[in-house]
Amino acid sequence: MNSTRDIDNLIELMAKLPGLGPRSARRAVLHLIRKRALLLTPLADVMQVVAETARECLNCGNVGTTDICDICESEKRATGELCVVEGVADLWAMERAGVFKGRYHVLGGTLSALDAIGPQDLRIPKLVDRVTSENITEVILALNATIDGQTTAHYIADQLGGQVRLTTLAQGVPIGGELDYLDDGTITAALNARKDI
Amino acid sequence: MNSTRDIDNLIELMAKLPGLGPRSARRAVLHLIRKRALLLTPLADVMQVVAETARECLNCGNVGTTDICDICESEKRATGELCVVEGVADLWAMERAGVFKGRYHVLGGTLSALDAIGPQDLRIPKLVDRVTSENITEVILALNATIDGQTTAHYIADQLGGQVRLTTLAQGVPIGGELDYLDDGTITAALNARKDI
Repeated sequence: MNSTRDIDNLIELMAKLPGLGPRSARRAVLHLIRKRALLLTPLADVMQVVAETARECLNCGNVGTTDICDICESEKRATGELCVVEGVADLWAMERAGVFKGRYHVLGGTLSALDAIGPQDLRIPKLVDRVTSENITEVILALNATIDGQTTAHYIADQLGGQVRLTTLAQGVPIGGELDYLDDGTITAALNARKDI
Repeated sequence: MNSTRDIDNLIELMAKLPGLGPRSARRAVLHLIRKRALLLTPLADVMQVVAETARECLNCGNVGTTDICDICESEKRATGELCVVEGVADLWAMERAGVFKGRYHVLGGTLSALDAIGPQDLRIPKLVDRVTSENITEVILALNATIDGQTTAHYIADQLGGQVRLTTLAQGVPIGGELDYLDDGTITAALNARKDI
């Protein structure tokens, strides 16, 4: 069908998004066409802007539209605390919690022998630079509790050893979590780190 | 955060798509930014084009980029068979099956007393027009097997009564379907319409 080439093309591109398959892409495209003025046109416009302006912060690796992101620029956040995360999604999750007032460092992944990702492929050298140049007093390793995440945490601890205070996120029962649904590892960690009340 | 206003805006718009929530919209946007040249820019471009050119076929209600869609234009498909569907998604599903060689008529919904949708809100008057003006010999009602779909089928049958051959899709066990997982209504329909082998 020639007159629907652009629409077919749009469906095909939408189907490449994580979380969408061919069927949901078709549904999304029909929805977009139906809500053209409210959704399709604004979405096309803002995508164009983001495609032109989005970049990684040269300092921390956060995604924004300026060379240095707002968090790195903000004087208020120069607390000497540096939170190391794997990806931008993790940084955003920390920001949504709204409790951390320092700055971030996005590694851009984890060390992985299987995928041949070494320290030079991540922002680990840049992290070592920042710790010495930015007056950092504490590095918080907020890496995922996976094998690769923990391997990376150990490597970073090794690199920074003795220079600054190194901490990691506490492990235990999530808020609202039910014991019955938790895995053995989490229960073990929570029990080992039990606190007086 | 000011420097991420456009990105936040993009996430907010993406989260309005069916099948995406805030979390999957964030994931999709990060994916888009990472695959800027391959995905984000082409998607923005084709969205712009579709936003400007997408329209409903004046004849059948299919979505395309021309006033009269390819199916209505095609001489090959002037078979005298007209397939009536509820929405464009249903038309696309029929086309994917690739077995129907006639033309379509998209109603744009079903009659619904609850939602106050009457025949004038759908393309039912246009359907009656087409049946008399287009040399239609058979109208196939491919409406969903829901209460509203079947009500609409009865109403259309009433309107077209006697003018043309009226048929509806067969009901029964879907290909690859297991009896154990089928509802009672489908099994009853399949048993009542049993065939000699």
